[in-house]
Amino acid sequence: MENFQYYTPTKVVFGKGAEEQAGELIRQQGCGRVLVHYGSGSVVRSGLLDRICASLDREKIPYITLGGVVPNPRLSLVYEGIDLCRRENVDFILAVGGGSVIDSAKAIGYGVKYDGDVWDFYSGKQKAKESVPIGVVLTISAAGSEMSDSSVITNEDGWLKRGYSSDCGRARFAVMNPELTMTLPKYQTASGCVDIMMHTMERYFNLSENMELTDGISEHLIRTVMKNAKILMTEPDNYDARAEVMWAGSLSHNGLTGCGTGGGDWACHQLEHELGGMFDVAHGAGLAAVWGSWARYVIDADPERFAKFAVNVMGVEPAESDEATGLKGIEAMEEFYRALEMPVKISDMGIQLTEEQMEELAEKCSHFGKRTVGCMKKLTKDDVYLIYKEAR
Amino acid sequence: MENFQYYTPTKVVFGKGAEEQAGELIRQQGCGRVLVHYGSGSVVRSGLLDRICASLDREKIPYITLGGVVPNPRLSLVYEGIDLCRRENVDFILAVGGGSVIDSAKAIGYGVKYDGDVWDFYSGKQKAKESVPIGVVLTISAAGSEMSDSSVITNEDGWLKRGYSSDCGRARFAVMNPELTMTLPKYQTASGCVDIMMHTMERYFNLSENMELTDGISEHLIRTVMKNAKILMTEPDNYDARAEVMWAGSLSHNGLTGCGTGGGDWACHQLEHELGGMFDVAHGAGLAAVWGSWARYVIDADPERFAKFAVNVMGVEPAESDEATGLKGIEAMEEFYRALEMPVKISDMGIQLTEEQMEELAEKCSHFGKRTVGCMKKLTKDDVYLIYKEAR
Repeated sequence: MENFQYYTPTKVVFGKGAEEQAGELIRQQGCGRVLVHYGSGSVVRSGLLDRICASLDREKIPYITLGGVVPNPRLSLVYEGIDLCRRENVDFILAVGGGSVIDSAKAIGYGVKYDGDVWDFYSGKQKAKESVPIGVVLTISAAGSEMSDSSVITNEDGWLKRGYSSDCGRARFAVMNPELTMTLPKYQTASGCVDIMMHTMERYFNLSENMELTDGISEHLIRTVMKNAKILMTEPDNYDARAEVMWAGSLSHNGLTGCGTGGGDWACHQLEHELGGMFDVAHGAGLAAVWGSWARYVIDADPERFAKFAVNVMGVEPAESDEATGLKGIEAMEEFYRALEMPVKISDMGIQLTEEQMEELAEKCSHFGKRTVGCMKKLTKDDVYLIYKEAR
Repeated sequence: MENFQYYTPTKVVFGKGAEEQAGELIRQQGCGRVLVHYGSGSVVRSGLLDRICASLDREKIPYITLGGVVPNPRLSLVYEGIDLCRRENVDFILAVGGGSVIDSAKAIGYGVKYDGDVWDFYSGKQKAKESVPIGVVLTISAAGSEMSDSSVITNEDGWLKRGYSSDCGRARFAVMNPELTMTLPKYQTASGCVDIMMHTMERYFNLSENMELTDGISEHLIRTVMKNAKILMTEPDNYDARAEVMWAGSLSHNGLTGCGTGGGDWACHQLEHELGGMFDVAHGAGLAAVWGSWARYVIDADPERFAKFAVNVMGVEPAESDEATGLKGIEAMEEFYRALEMPVKISDMGIQLTEEQMEELAEKCSHFGKRTVGCMKKLTKDDVYLIYKEAR
């Protein structure tokens, strides 16, 4: 197994009514002025934003607000947030929302403390040395950004969707009340569940000899999300199912399921990032749309691993060979995606990729041929093109 | 399921050669002078202490040393450490050893920052507000103190063994190289594995409706430790088995396996603390010696839970009733303890409890009748006495 680091300093406050503690948690950070960052409609309509602001008022914490974050959060709003924080001497950012809002908050945090263009971090030119600390009130179970070191921002100039990871961006605290996710539409719930599963599956598939402890945790986490995702399709108000999924979302991306794995594959995330940048699809849905094609493309690199996944996660009976077992597992996962009304092809999202678009996606995904993606196979631009074509 | 908090800020550096990073990790803490705290023989004999000191020298970090920690670490040495730290302006403590050394370091850390007697925290009179930060180089997989908020100190005045838990005592970092545990004698390895399992079992057994995600992680963790403990009985140098056990030791006591459980039972720990205080037994061995008697005493409070444990962890076939299944699981666990040459009765440790001693243990464990222990059943002094008697 591989050496690893594990660092998850985020204090989680989980359960009913947890959001009432936001003010007190911020006060414990000893900050002077807070930016409350959020998206649009639902946080305002549900009254959550008012309750959070009331919690800050009770603690006499000065704050300003900045809404308007959209899915696949935009660099332009990040720039606006940076200017605002500097002008108003903000020293703490509270993200109220899901992964997009948290990622936008992280990017603002990095940018405030950096003299250059914050995009430098996302384009790989620079590494962040510090950040304005952030806290989270989570309203969507999906991205795991509340406990992860990563954030993904979309640059409208070229519609490039790029990720950046740094320990200094990790949230100081995350307030997680599963009830806040009950109003999510079915499609977003399903898409979030796929995203959660994929954060562990990306780590699970690698060429290292994994830790037994990590493998079993990963397999159980995926099974738990699958079971509860199905429950949520018919019982969106089921608290326990919302809670299982919400906590799985954090554990799936805080590093736990990657311990000893050498990092994982992550090709599907790279493939989806380009789709998300070009078409603004829901992240989880985009992952579901490419996963099967990716899996069939790389299965021969480690059929045993795919067979283990098929048996332990998908409950498949072993077939005549590891590869045959693994293929049955891939089919079973696609069946599950369909049951969640998730796509298993890009066309299932209403996108008919043209030849030129596939070329462009492959160009961008491979950074114009300058890098490979994934570790099961190191996928070149041509490989990536073929996977997009298969997934079309 | 219950609301919960989860907070594990300790940065883990895990794997071969990890201890070489101790100096750099301390430098990142920005401290002025370090106390290197350790036990006795093996850390010195193995050359580990020299390597750690060399790592500090390379980073030009001034340090002093204090050895002499014994199993069931003593309050008198804690006092000595506090005096030393104050005299020498120590602002970081590096524990090089296992749970006893880490717990001693935590107690010193609390004491340096407190005007009164550090025992006030362990006797429940006060709560620590701050601590000198500590770091860990782990050499024994067992207590989980490297990532936990808890520490246990023995007061020679009355041989009282008492625990104290505080987030401010959590280690800033933990350096974990499984190779460092390869020289542990078989008995200590086995005892450590029992301790690790029990940290999760204490959390697993409770009257709440547990999270599915937590339950499955717990069950897999215990199974993984059992499997690898057996391997280590014949292959003490097996790196992978040492690594599985070491990482399980941290995850078992950092809070992960308690999420949503409402806290857990912990009666066995209380029962063992008194044994450890009176007889200086190895903690894990003491836990093994009382667990079966405790389990049979409380099984009727929730036979279903014991049955789940029996089937999912011990691989027992369901019997005619949950209680019958649960009892088979308890027997199977005792069988496993015996296979590890661990005790299943107190007399197996060469201790023949007298009537007076059982009375005294029950008095101390119940804080002289002023508290109950456990949650499966709230055990009074009389209950505790009966369990000691059964375990005798």
